[in-house]
Amino acid sequence: MVDAPIRIGVIGYGYWGPNLARNFANSDGCRLEAVSDLEERKLAACARLHPGAITTTRFCDLIEDPDIDAVVIATPAHTHFELALSSLRAGKHVMVEKPMAQSADQVCRLIDEAERRKLTLMVDHTFLYTPAVQRIGKLISEGALGDIYYYNGTRASLGLFQSDVSVIWDLAVHDISIIQYILNDTPVAVSATGATHVMGTPENMAHITLFFEGSCVAHINVNWLSPVKVRQTFIGGSRKMIVYDDLEPDEKIKVYDKGITLNPSAEKAHQLKIGYRAGDMWAPNLPAGEALHAEAQHFLECIRNGTTPISSGITGLKVVQILEAASCSIAAKGRPIQLQHNQSLGALAI
Amino acid sequence: MVDAPIRIGVIGYGYWGPNLARNFANSDGCRLEAVSDLEERKLAACARLHPGAITTTRFCDLIEDPDIDAVVIATPAHTHFELALSSLRAGKHVMVEKPMAQSADQVCRLIDEAERRKLTLMVDHTFLYTPAVQRIGKLISEGALGDIYYYNGTRASLGLFQSDVSVIWDLAVHDISIIQYILNDTPVAVSATGATHVMGTPENMAHITLFFEGSCVAHINVNWLSPVKVRQTFIGGSRKMIVYDDLEPDEKIKVYDKGITLNPSAEKAHQLKIGYRAGDMWAPNLPAGEALHAEAQHFLECIRNGTTPISSGITGLKVVQILEAASCSIAAKGRPIQLQHNQSLGALAI
Amino acid sequence: MVDAPIRIGVIGYGYWGPNLARNFANSDGCRLEAVSDLEERKLAACARLHPGAITTTRFCDLIEDPDIDAVVIATPAHTHFELALSSLRAGKHVMVEKPMAQSADQVCRLIDEAERRKLTLMVDHTFLYTPAVQRIGKLISEGALGDIYYYNGTRASLGLFQSDVSVIWDLAVHDISIIQYILNDTPVAVSATGATHVMGTPENMAHITLFFEGSCVAHINVNWLSPVKVRQTFIGGSRKMIVYDDLEPDEKIKVYDKGITLNPSAEKAHQLKIGYRAGDMWAPNLPAGEALHAEAQHFLECIRNGTTPISSGITGLKVVQILEAASCSIAAKGRPIQLQHNQSLGALAI
Amino acid sequence: MVDAPIRIGVIGYGYWGPNLARNFANSDGCRLEAVSDLEERKLAACARLHPGAITTTRFCDLIEDPDIDAVVIATPAHTHFELALSSLRAGKHVMVEKPMAQSADQVCRLIDEAERRKLTLMVDHTFLYTPAVQRIGKLISEGALGDIYYYNGTRASLGLFQSDVSVIWDLAVHDISIIQYILNDTPVAVSATGATHVMGTPENMAHITLFFEGSCVAHINVNWLSPVKVRQTFIGGSRKMIVYDDLEPDEKIKVYDKGITLNPSAEKAHQLKIGYRAGDMWAPNLPAGEALHAEAQHFLECIRNGTTPISSGITGLKVVQILEAASCSIAAKGRPIQLQHNQSLGALAI
Repeated sequence: MVDAPIRIGVIGYGYWGPNLARNFANSDGCRLEAVSDLEERKLAACARLHPGAITTTRFCDLIEDPDIDAVVIATPAHTHFELALSSLRAGKHVMVEKPMAQSADQVCRLIDEAERRKLTLMVDHTFLYTPAVQRIGKLISEGALGDIYYYNGTRASLGLFQSDVSVIWDLAVHDISIIQYILNDTPVAVSATGATHVMGTPENMAHITLFFEGSCVAHINVNWLSPVKVRQTFIGGSRKMIVYDDLEPDEKIKVYDKGITLNPSAEKAHQLKIGYRAGDMWAPNLPAGEALHAEAQHFLECIRNGTTPISSGITGLKVVQILEAASCSIAAKGRPIQLQHNQSLGALAI
Repeated sequence: MVDAPIRIGVIGYGYWGPNLARNFANSDGCRLEAVSDLEERKLAACARLHPGAITTTRFCDLIEDPDIDAVVIATPAHTHFELALSSLRAGKHVMVEKPMAQSADQVCRLIDEAERRKLTLMVDHTFLYTPAVQRIGKLISEGALGDIYYYNGTRASLGLFQSDVSVIWDLAVHDISIIQYILNDTPVAVSATGATHVMGTPENMAHITLFFEGSCVAHINVNWLSPVKVRQTFIGGSRKMIVYDDLEPDEKIKVYDKGITLNPSAEKAHQLKIGYRAGDMWAPNLPAGEALHAEAQHFLECIRNGTTPISSGITGLKVVQILEAASCSIAAKGRPIQLQHNQSLGALAI
Repeated sequence: MVDAPIRIGVIGYGYWGPNLARNFANSDGCRLEAVSDLEERKLAACARLHPGAITTTRFCDLIEDPDIDAVVIATPAHTHFELALSSLRAGKHVMVEKPMAQSADQVCRLIDEAERRKLTLMVDHTFLYTPAVQRIGKLISEGALGDIYYYNGTRASLGLFQSDVSVIWDLAVHDISIIQYILNDTPVAVSATGATHVMGTPENMAHITLFFEGSCVAHINVNWLSPVKVRQTFIGGSRKMIVYDDLEPDEKIKVYDKGITLNPSAEKAHQLKIGYRAGDMWAPNLPAGEALHAEAQHFLECIRNGTTPISSGITGLKVVQILEAASCSIAAKGRPIQLQHNQSLGALAI
Repeated sequence: MVDAPIRIGVIGYGYWGPNLARNFANSDGCRLEAVSDLEERKLAACARLHPGAITTTRFCDLIEDPDIDAVVIATPAHTHFELALSSLRAGKHVMVEKPMAQSADQVCRLIDEAERRKLTLMVDHTFLYTPAVQRIGKLISEGALGDIYYYNGTRASLGLFQSDVSVIWDLAVHDISIIQYILNDTPVAVSATGATHVMGTPENMAHITLFFEGSCVAHINVNWLSPVKVRQTFIGGSRKMIVYDDLEPDEKIKVYDKGITLNPSAEKAHQLKIGYRAGDMWAPNLPAGEALHAEAQHFLECIRNGTTPISSGITGLKVVQILEAASCSIAAKGRPIQLQHNQSLGALAI
């Protein structure tokens, strides 16, 4: 017996919604049932590409539609919580664009709602589904890099300025989700600084440092006002180091067999005991394929099997907690903010 | 009448000393009189290249030598203050390797000593004498970039770990001197974070944010533990933006006619009033020539004419004040530290 | 009164056909009426994207359809002549994928047929419609580069090996069309070498030199067996030089104010009178937009107004003549082959 | 017993001579005895750096000096033969800058003279002593690349125009020496084209194709009139492919596990049986060190042990034969010229 297709409704057909709609439309085991957006013009474009899907300017129609099993939310950030909560209450599985919501409290309520109703709740952290990030995660978990010393990411371009969230909720969210995924460690504190160059808008550039229990440190540099696009991350380990450049068409990951060595037999006290080791560089071949397609498949699979998504509500919660703390720190010009994951999650009895 | 040549003594013939010795040896109007170093092996190498110069393991000989007019100090940072002070007291003009000393107090005492004796005191901030930084400074002072939004610099490589100073005193010092030189503005506070990955050694990676009165912000990322060398700075302005890559052999500076535009007639309140503007890129041709040679000439000229160096003691003081504050902030995991330039300089009655 | 839409039929829905179909479907003033391909699977994909177009495995249906005004041919090269000739005889305007046909004789017959019937005949030399090539052409025609010394192009990647044409008919055809477009000059002879690394297949790498009356020389390097993709062209002029890299996302064209200077006052006979001049580099901002869309618009406009396309049959003829000569030269291991344009075109009484 | 140091005389202290002098001065087992140049100014510069060496404007003094064991010739190409022959006749070992001489006949006479007198004769093909070329040679000889399909090298920059030799004798000579060294194969014919853009001077740009017995083909593109410097070589093999970029500071060699696969079971005759294989990229770490230093050591070792240099007279002869043939082909606009190595070498009874 073949499973009935999971019927998908997409709310929001602006910048990212068309990609979500297209990937669900091209996935097996599901059907793109309906798309809603406030602008008729965008719905018309949708109708041309997806003549089989209903289009509507009323998102309620979609949430209330008994023929829809799962709702995919790709609207501005400040609407995520309301739309996701309504959808869960209507009994729909939910996938919500990043950032999951605008506060950890909101995310906790979504997690709670989904738990009670046994519904799949997933946040769209697309980068976790890229071959590059998956490979990096595998290299780290296998121990190929040794102890992780640092993650140092830069994500910059000219625009797109958002009106309802700052650059950290728009861009740093990617790095925070990646850091969580590839490092088997939880940050204990965050210090961040930021700047606004257009009066009355949220921060358009920021730097975030995440502190961990050990000596590992993560830094994220995000900027909406850069003359050139940059998507570059350095990851340093005791055995190997990685440069991950997402703009490289072919060799996105370069693994360097480089590092330092400690020489215990240095003759004099004032001499440094540090040597430098340079070895080969290696760029693993990565499979092709759109990350969003893999992510759509994963969402469908989690719905079908009742399994927890890689980018689950809890994942989204941890990311939002860090974003909240970073926002506090930015407002306090870098003052470090402690992260208390247990307390926040305590309410969920995890 | 031709001026008598200025007789130069160089203390320290390790990593940077040979470059200083070579440039003074190749400059008109001066003579490389003597070089001291604690290691005989290094002095032997010096003697081969500079057979006319006296070599000695006793730096005192050099400081006390009446035939020496100016002392150039290229020793480890913790010795700068003592050597510079002794040299000034012996009536020598002094050029001292960066960082000028290990505290603002020390620098103030050196400035004071030089003032009283009417001696030239200069700190070796080599980058200020590069054609690239001079050109950037000129573009900014001419207003070509408009209002400066940010300076965002990265300086990373594998090594050289220093034993007596952290990575910010070794590498960030360059950016801080550049920021001071090209921006007509003084930072009011600093937030910094750092990490140590070799037990018992100073921080080997760090991130520093400098806050200014206006919306301009400067950020510096330094790292001794990077798999690849990076020397890249982004400077954003309201009219143009610069990418300065010091590793580019030819086009070190790229000026982008890119930015954002504000649209006052946006129909709806929730719409962003921001547009994006993309124009030409332009890489000005820069003159060739070693910065250190220009700097050596400048030192000689300041001695001869009694003029104040571009990288004067006051310049060095401001840099060290920022480094001190950044060190405090690193120890406090990013807590912002106010900078009170006036107070420090008050003692000097400036 | 509004013109009736031009009704388009596309023959061939393999590698390039979908792009042509999509661009005509998205163009104003025309309608994608029908698409034919031998493979049902490809037609099904077409039907999903273009539900309004008829699909058929019989190209004759399309050529004979009185509701079709213009035929766009995107089939393997060896079928171009037959399909284009049939289409012209059926009274259709024709746009044919490059290379236009497999011999100059065939192209002459197509030109002749179109002339007699007053139909538009155009060859798809897409690069002529890119903002980059158009800008280069403008810079040269304005004299910004001075006298053109050389064109030196490399076009390489891994695949796609063609079974019915060699690498020069597949890749060098682009450069030859560009050279014709941007240089106001006609080559007089060609020397070419090539190699086959898969037994029984056409050449997969080749080097072509085109000689002109003056000292200008053009060279094209094409390769289906390169580990990395390369699309790079150097153009040297007496006043300025261009590096055109089609893989650069933003700065495809870099104009260098560099060159040599002749010094007539060199003292000694054996001294070289040549100096080197290095000035600024400049990368003009290029408009965005898909070249194929502009090309589709141009085809429709030529049909409507009866004007001659930029990539006309005569253009295609000159390109094919050079390809034929280059093929001869490859077979003779580089022996130069004279090009006699006048003679070939004589038959057409131009 | 320690060997007496080999006493070296260098003729020519222009562009390359200072590098040779410096490397012999810094080598163990030899002494830089004397340097000659026609220009006093250059000798003065030499005297400063090498106070222990005699300087003279009369090269005869140096050749006739009984205290000199070996002569290193770094003068313009048209003087190589006379100077090398005189030196050999005076009983000196000889190392001569590339190109070894201006004709194969001249080289044969030098080889003959050296053979009769049991003297070491070496040509300065510096690239053969670089870690990059040695590693490529090792990879090929081990079979890591499989069958070699092609060598495709580009060597371009702005200048230095030579007055007595064309660009192929100045730049292509490097590639030809590398090709000889890394491929275990001898070209059978050559086709070349070139162009002169400064009236009255030799060709300043050229393209050379070397044909081998099998399907391997080598191509060399050289240019003195390029806006940017290029030193890039692609080497294609049946198993792996190499991109060798000599301007890369660290990863000069990249080995790509990419290629094509042949599918014998293709269903239809017109289908291509070719598949594409993409694997990892790997950049081996190369030892640091100046090639010229290794080459100087090798020359001294060959003198001391009577062994044949890697870049022997015979090596230089084969290179010059190819350059002569390429010059003929350029004059005939690409007409292929057969290479008859055996005949030329016949006179030497090899």
